[in-house]
Parts: sequence; C-alpha cells; structure tokens
Amino acid sequence: AVTPAPPTGAVRVRLGDNNYGKADVRLFKVFRDSPRHEIKDVWVRVGMRGDFSAAHEVGDNTDLVATDTVRNTIYALARDHLTGSVEAFGKELIRHFVQAGPRVSGAYATFTEHLWDRLPVPGQPGGHDHAFARQLPKHTARVEGDGQRFTVESGIDELFILKTTQSGWAGFHRDQFTTLPETTDRILATTVTARWTYREDNPDYDAVWARVYGTLLEVFPDHYSHSMQHTLYRLGEAVLTRCPEIERIHFSFPNRHHIPYDLGRFGLENPGVIFHADAEPYGVIEGWVERA
Amino acid sequence: AVTPAPPTGAVRVRLGDNNYGKADVRLFKVFRDSPRHEIKDVWVRVGMRGDFSAAHEVGDNTDLVATDTVRNTIYALARDHLTGSVEAFGKELIRHFVQAGPRVSGAYATFTEHLWDRLPVPGQPGGHDHAFARQLPKHTARVEGDGQRFTVESGIDELFILKTTQSGWAGFHRDQFTTLPETTDRILATTVTARWTYREDNPDYDAVWARVYGTLLEVFPDHYSHSMQHTLYRLGEAVLTRCPEIERIHFSFPNRHHIPYDLGRFGLENPGVIFHADAEPYGVIEGWVERA
Amino acid sequence: AVTPAPPTGAVRVRLGDNNYGKADVRLFKVFRDSPRHEIKDVWVRVGMRGDFSAAHEVGDNTDLVATDTVRNTIYALARDHLTGSVEAFGKELIRHFVQAGPRVSGAYATFTEHLWDRLPVPGQPGGHDHAFARQLPKHTARVEGDGQRFTVESGIDELFILKTTQSGWAGFHRDQFTTLPETTDRILATTVTARWTYREDNPDYDAVWARVYGTLLEVFPDHYSHSMQHTLYRLGEAVLTRCPEIERIHFSFPNRHHIPYDLGRFGLENPGVIFHADAEPYGVIEGWVERA
Amino acid sequence: AVTPAPPTGAVRVRLGDNNYGKADVRLFKVFRDSPRHEIKDVWVRVGMRGDFSAAHEVGDNTDLVATDTVRNTIYALARDHLTGSVEAFGKELIRHFVQAGPRVSGAYATFTEHLWDRLPVPGQPGGHDHAFARQLPKHTARVEGDGQRFTVESGIDELFILKTTQSGWAGFHRDQFTTLPETTDRILATTVTARWTYREDNPDYDAVWARVYGTLLEVFPDHYSHSMQHTLYRLGEAVLTRCPEIERIHFSFPNRHHIPYDLGRFGLENPGVIFHADAEPYGVIEGWVERA
Repeated sequence: AVTPAPPTGAVRVRLGDNNYGKADVRLFKVFRDSPRHEIKDVWVRVGMRGDFSAAHEVGDNTDLVATDTVRNTIYALARDHLTGSVEAFGKELIRHFVQAGPRVSGAYATFTEHLWDRLPVPGQPGGHDHAFARQLPKHTARVEGDGQRFTVESGIDELFILKTTQSGWAGFHRDQFTTLPETTDRILATTVTARWTYREDNPDYDAVWARVYGTLLEVFPDHYSHSMQHTLYRLGEAVLTRCPEIERIHFSFPNRHHIPYDLGRFGLENPGVIFHADAEPYGVIEGWVERA
Repeated sequence: AVTPAPPTGAVRVRLGDNNYGKADVRLFKVFRDSPRHEIKDVWVRVGMRGDFSAAHEVGDNTDLVATDTVRNTIYALARDHLTGSVEAFGKELIRHFVQAGPRVSGAYATFTEHLWDRLPVPGQPGGHDHAFARQLPKHTARVEGDGQRFTVESGIDELFILKTTQSGWAGFHRDQFTTLPETTDRILATTVTARWTYREDNPDYDAVWARVYGTLLEVFPDHYSHSMQHTLYRLGEAVLTRCPEIERIHFSFPNRHHIPYDLGRFGLENPGVIFHADAEPYGVIEGWVERA
Repeated sequence: AVTPAPPTGAVRVRLGDNNYGKADVRLFKVFRDSPRHEIKDVWVRVGMRGDFSAAHEVGDNTDLVATDTVRNTIYALARDHLTGSVEAFGKELIRHFVQAGPRVSGAYATFTEHLWDRLPVPGQPGGHDHAFARQLPKHTARVEGDGQRFTVESGIDELFILKTTQSGWAGFHRDQFTTLPETTDRILATTVTARWTYREDNPDYDAVWARVYGTLLEVFPDHYSHSMQHTLYRLGEAVLTRCPEIERIHFSFPNRHHIPYDLGRFGLENPGVIFHADAEPYGVIEGWVERA
Repeated sequence: AVTPAPPTGAVRVRLGDNNYGKADVRLFKVFRDSPRHEIKDVWVRVGMRGDFSAAHEVGDNTDLVATDTVRNTIYALARDHLTGSVEAFGKELIRHFVQAGPRVSGAYATFTEHLWDRLPVPGQPGGHDHAFARQLPKHTARVEGDGQRFTVESGIDELFILKTTQSGWAGFHRDQFTTLPETTDRILATTVTARWTYREDNPDYDAVWARVYGTLLEVFPDHYSHSMQHTLYRLGEAVLTRCPEIERIHFSFPNRHHIPYDLGRFGLENPGVIFHADAEPYGVIEGWVERA
C-alpha cells in the first residue's frame, strides 16, 4: 500500500487548484518542402488540470501522465500539427492532453516564439534560402481550454522602443513627497510587453500579430505623449481599430527613465544631450484597453 | 487643451483594469539603536488602482501621483514604519497611497526580502555585531488592500533542496508517447517557490515565515516520495498543521531532473552515482493545499 | 595616523597588478542638431592602473580618484567628445584619466553599444526622425593605453545565426568514449562573439564594424561547413580580406546543438524536421585568424 | 576532397591561438558508500589546445575529438576520478585529453562547484543523511596543463558581504569633476570574486578553500576600512598569512553603493538609517596580493 499514515496530529486538509506539466521544452522545426526552408523556434510549456487527488494524497500515480511523456508528445505532435501559428498548435496540444490523460479536464499551453529573419544576400531581395539571424521582439501566446473551447491570448515581448522628444510629464499631483520637476520634453523609453484576446475563434493569428506589431511601431511616435498612460491608451485604441479580430489588449510598460545628467556642476550646459539611462527603479504602467 | 483628436475612424474603446506605480525600489535600512545593528534589505514594488481614465484618455495628469513620488514615499515611510515585517510595512504603504492619491481606491505592495546572517566571530556564538553575509532563500510578500482591509500573501523563493534517495516515480499512466522507465530510487531536486495566505489579521509574519521554512526543511526528506505531487501535499499538510495562522499554501515546484548518465556504453556500471543535472526542460508541479 | 598595525605574525606581502574604476555606467546621448535625431546608447566601464600602493597598504587615499568622479567624468566628456565611434571616445577617456589621476599610468575603457534602428514610417524610406527600436547584435569595444599609445579591440556580441543545411560533422576521431554518429546534414547554430584588432591607428571604426558584420552574414552560409572550426577559419579569412584595417580577429562560437528528436520510438519518421534545441551543454570553439 | 578553394582574391591568413571543447556540463555525483551520502554538484568546461590547423583550413576532422566525446568522457571519468576536490579531478581530465586527443598538446578544465549543506534534523547535530540545501558562495577552479605539469587556480564566487559601519571614504583626490562628499561612516558592501594560485603541487584544495573562506569572513569586518583597496590588501595579507599553500590571491570587488536617501527634503532626519542600494553603476576594485 502506498499510503503513509498522515503525520500524527495532522489537521484535515484538501488539495486546491493545481496543475502540472513540462516547461521550457525547446522545440525547433524545419520545413524543407522546397529549397527555401522555413523555421519555427519555440519554447513550450504545457500544464494539465483535473482530478489528481489520488497522486497527491496517497501517492497513487495510476492516472498521472509523466511530464516526460508530455515532452515526447509536444515533439511528436509538432511534426504534423505545428504547420502554422503556435496558437493553432496550442489547441491541438490541449485537445490531445484532455483526451489522452485519464483525469485531465483541461490544459494550457504557453509559447515563446523566437523570430528569425533571413540573412541578406547581395542581389537577392528575399534573403537567404536556409540561413537566418534571430530578431527582437518575441511572439508569445497562451492557449487554455477543455478540448472543446479555447481561450487564446497572443502577445509581444522584448520590444525595446524609445523616442527622444514629443513626450512630457507635467501637471501631475504634488504632495509632501513630490520632488520631481515637470518637463515638456523628455525621452520616453519602454520595453513593450503586450497581450491580447480575440473576438473570433480562428483568426489568422500570425497576420494579426504582424498587424499589432506594425501598429505599435507606427503609433508610438505619432503623438505628443502626456504620460505613459496616455500613450498606452492611444496604442490600445489604434490596435482595436485596425484589428477587428481583437477583443481587448493589455500593456505592461516599464518606464525606462532617462535622466538628464547634471553637468551644470561642471559649468557645462546639457540641453537634452547627455542622459543616465537608469536601470532601477522603474515606473510600471499596466492596463487593458477594451471595446466600449 | 490636452486632448488630441482620436485617430480618424477610431473605434470606441474604454480603459479596463489598470494600475501603475514603481518597481525595483531597492530599500536598505539599518537599525542602530545598539551597537548590535539589525538590517532590512528589501526590493519593493508598489502599484495603485483607481479611476485614472482622464490621464489615459485625454492626457490630463491632474490626479496622477508621479511614480517618482512613490519612490520617495517608500523610502520616507520606511524610516518610521518599517520596524518589523515587510507585510506590516506593506499595510502602511497601502494606507498612505490610498489616502494620498486623489483617485486611488486601492493599492498593492510586493516585496523581495534578502536575508543576511551575521558573520561568524570565533568565540562569539551570536556572530558579528555589524557584518553580514547574504543567504538563500528569500522572503517574498504581497499585500493588497483598499486602506481598510488587506489581503496578505507571504512566500519563500529560491530555496534549492534535493534528496539523493527515498524518492521514486512508478506506476504512472503509459500511452503511445511514454518512454520513461519506472524507478523506485531517484534523486528528487527542486527550487521551492511557496506562498501562503492567513486566517488572522495580524499574525507575527516573520515568526510564521521561519516556522514554514523550518517545516519545509524537516518534512521534505521525512517520507518516501511517490511523486513531486505527493511531497507537495505532505508539505502543505505539515505547514497547515504547524501554522494555525495560515489559511492555505501554494507551491510551485520545478522538477530538476537528475538523469543517470548512460555509462554502460563504455562498459562501466553506474549504480546511482553519476548524473546529468538537466537544465531544461523541467517538470513543473503546482498546487494549493487548503484546510478541509 | 591611518596605518593600522599589520596583524600579528603577518607574512610579508606586496601589491601586484591592480586596477580600479567604474562599471556599468549607462550613458545615453542625443544629437539634436537637426530634427533628425541621432542617438548613442552605451554601457561604459573605465579602469585605471598606476601606483596605488599607499591606498592599499596604509589606507592613504590622497592620490585616488573617486570612482564617483570617474562616473561624472564619463558623462561630462561624452558631451563634447562622444561624437563618433565609442573607440575614439575611449581614447579621449584614457587621455583624460592618465592626465587627471595623480598616479595613473594607464587606463582602459570598455563599451557595450546597443544599436537602434529608426522606426518604420509608411511612405518614408529612411524611417522616423526621433523614434527607434533596439536591435541585435551589439557593438563592443575595448581601448587601453598610456595616454599616448592605444590598443583598440572592437567586437560583435549577441549575433544569433543558424543555417538549416549545408553543415556536417563527420570523419572525426573516435575513441572508447565516442558515441556520436556522423552526419552530413545538420543544423549549425551559434551566437557570435567576435573581436578584432587593427593595423591602423585611426580607421573608421564604425565603418569597419559594419563591414565585418556584413561579411559574417554573407559568408556564414556561403559554404558547406565541415565543422565550426572550418567555418570560423573561413569567416576570419573573409574578414581579413575585406577589411585591410584589421590585423587579426578572434571568434568564440558556442555550438548550439539542435538534436533530431527520436520520433522513431512512436513510429514516426523525422527526416530533419523536429529538433530539440539543447541549452546545455554546448560545444565551444575559439580561435584567432591572423594575417600570414 | 574536402578543401574548397579559398575565396577569390583572399589574403593569406593563418590560424592563431585556439582551443575547443565542451562547456556547461552539469555533473552530479552521489557517494553512497554509507547511508550518509555525500554529493558533488559541478558545472564543468573542458577545452583542448594543439595543432588543429587541418580542421580549420581544409575541413579535415581526422584528428578532432568530438565535443560530444568530451562530454561523455567527463561523466565517465568522474565515476572513478572525482573522489575529492575538483582541482584534483581537473588534473585527471587534462591527463586524459592530452593522451587521448591525437593532436592535443594541452588542455584546461574549469569548474563551478555548488555547495550544499545537509538539511537540519531536530536532535541530530550533523544534519540529514541524504537531504541537502544549496548554499552561497560557490567554489570555482581552473586547471591548465600539458599532462605533466599543471597550473591550478581556485576561487570563491557569489559571496555577498557587507558591514554597516567601520568604513569610510575620505581624503581622496578632488578635481573639477568631483562632487562626492567625504564620509567616515558608510556601508561597505561587495560580492567577493576571489581566485588564488598555489606554491605546492598537491595541497588539500578543499581544506585551503575552507580556510580562505573563513579568513575572508573573519577579516572583512575586523578593521576600519579606509577604502575597498585598503580592505582588499588586508584580506590578501591575512589569506597569505594563514595559507602557506597559496602563492598569491586576486580579488575583484564591485563596490555595491548604499546611498543615504535624502529625506531632508521631507523634513526628516536620516542618520545612516535609510539607504538606496544602487544597482548601477558600481565601483570595481581589482588586484593581486602577492608574497614579497
């Protein structure tokens, strides 16, 4: 019998919300259908939910899928089912694990997709057939479901952007702990982490991603920014306008402060020229923009 | 007027759930009341919630507290109010920001506290009066509230533990993608990330933390582990038994696989001696243990 | 008197090679001469060498420049002297510190320059005037000298490249610990860290950097690679051919193994399609290519 | 024939100093001779030097040992030869690779050893027989040699120490860029990275390491520190006094600045109580202390 006696005098407890699976599965796929290869470079995590109380409470593993099996399965299913977006592949993974796991009632799959550009070839506009260089930013995704219905979130990560003007921070509330002077011309720099949900079941995820990305690059500098919040809202509005597939979008914006270095102490003017790019602390502004 | 016209043809949108504040504020406090100094070394993040729509929608910052003010405030309040646990300090911070911010209806504070031991002094059992070395693990905490009521979560992070025997993984479900052999003697290694909530409003947070920590160290090796899930549950049961202040506890356990290296290919036996400590992928087992 | 007595019974010792300075100085400069802004985003470290024995041996700081002064100086000098390459700025820094420090006989400056592209603007080929996105790879540099003469090393870091074919690993030495099969078609993936020295005193450092970078991208995939060593040599030969300014070049190549996942265990073929991108361990191949 | 023609017009080049091998090999060994298990947790890198020009120049791999073989060998040799210190094991590895590699004339092995303490057991002073928690700092080592003679360097890494008083920084050189005030009471905080060489061929490496470690902890706070340089020298002197096996010792000390936060702006005194633990930039002080 696998059941140890509970510790003497133990209180009565129960298992709450739980999940398990495999993380940091580094999956790489090459599409060799033509001499012009395509690649997918994705880090995958899969977690399963369900009634796993026997394993927890009495050490009975009968109904547990090994996380090593999860790993094998991700690679095996990628062979035939990772043909387009990671979001679509995520649905296939979840369908499989809900069906295959004896007590699995739902699952999630998260993805970090590294994007690669073709190496340039002199005189060949489309770039190299089978050689690539990795780029920023990254495409993230999270799919969750019960095998029938899915919620899909896609995202952008590690997009470092800045503008050197057309940003200010003024008119804000002042109290006894406020020392910051107002400014109507500062550097605005951030690392975009965005994620969004969909209004449709089967949009072209990669096309939407590219449109969001293009929108961020175009709208970030197209206005005078009164605050990171102001720019956040404007970016969300633009994304929702251009992407009817999207229900709502969330941004997390570290405000990477660029602080004018005080050169006046050395008799030198510093009209917005020399800055300290401060690593910490940083402001952080987060919010959803939704359809009204 | 600060309001730019919305982009032509923009859809109607609204601001959803949002918050902002300051992150990675590195606060260090010395208590010099006696020659035997005490220290607190904490990384703090504070975020505020409330009606910040004017700032987002029309760039009106009137009611925004600058995140630089947040930083100043954390240091200033730490002077008189960081006298015990970070959890208690978190409540003070939230009370302040809800009161000070014109439209702040709630706030949260998160903490990563680095723990330091006194340097040893030959012949002086209690260690050095004012010299310290940093230790693992870390004490984490998150406090959230509206200024009147608070929810408090405390945690442990970066606790690396392993045992070299008394752990197995057998009797699990097998399907077409299962290749892992069963074992009744393996290395079990993990990095504990735990967090728990309370049944009481003002427990002695640091005393509870120490008791949880001691319980984990004592119970982790006290049983034959049928699975990470099995050990998770037993740890939770022990914590809830020994800590009546705690309502429930969550663990996130990466399963840091130690794989016997196949030396048979070289004519060498390897009876549980030589392992590859695999970095990725890793199993991950997560769950709450609650009072029944 | 600042000199403490040495510990009783201390052996006779002396100060050996030493240096000190400031690291991780995050310098950001904006060139606003026209509405089309230019930026420099550089992490700087400066170290000084000289006779600092009094400070070490008896705690006499009379001749030490504070590292805080080093920081101030880097920002102050950047105002007028960081007008082109970081390499040229490094020489200015060294000249200054050798002159300014009472006992400084030499100094070094190292740089990690983050490169930013202009954000795309529809219908404007050159991109945005004042908005940028950060790119990979990075431009590194190290300048060292006595104020009169300088040795300059420039480099490339965090260049992730791969090719999906035209690479093999066969015909290698086999001994009792060799289990790896030969292959004539594998993925070759690496993260380039390169650095080179010069034959000229004042080349156009940024132009050379761009030419090296372009050469690496063009030559990496232009041949069947028998080994990482083989490709290293060919890259070096190409750089030295195209860059007469360069004396020699060093590469450090982690071999980021992409291992075909064994799907045969599940009855599936895997003809170079599904790979595990292994994080560790990795091969590492390092070497200089020099003019003969 | 494996030799491709060199690129047309290529200049004449040659292979300079080079080496190759395997890095980040994560080796874990359990000693099960008694119920009281011992463990070794080590990350290993091995590199080989020699005449590898054929591989580089013409893609002839005949005399190359595969880095996968290097990996296999490290695990295989660890079985019988990792019985004590990593330094001693490093010599065995080098002996092997110089002998086994057709053209290997020398090799190096570097180690990062993670140290683990036994978990406490109530009423059992020596701790648990087979359960462990990972500790700071780490033991590093580098062994290099031709198979006959070896140079050995051992080290300590990630040792975070600080003292809250008995440290100052005053009397230093001032110039036009100096703004830092003097202080005779500051926090001194650093992360020790030390490495040392030996006067003996076969010292007890682990015993010396423990003695160095104990000396650092004891001497760091035993004096008023006029500067990081001053403390560096005193630590070196103490190590060389207590460790006759050591020839010389190098320290690299980041000066982790703890800056008193200016609470005077809010009408609050701050007598050495509230600090900002600045992440960057940091001073860095490096030097050897040698026998005179």
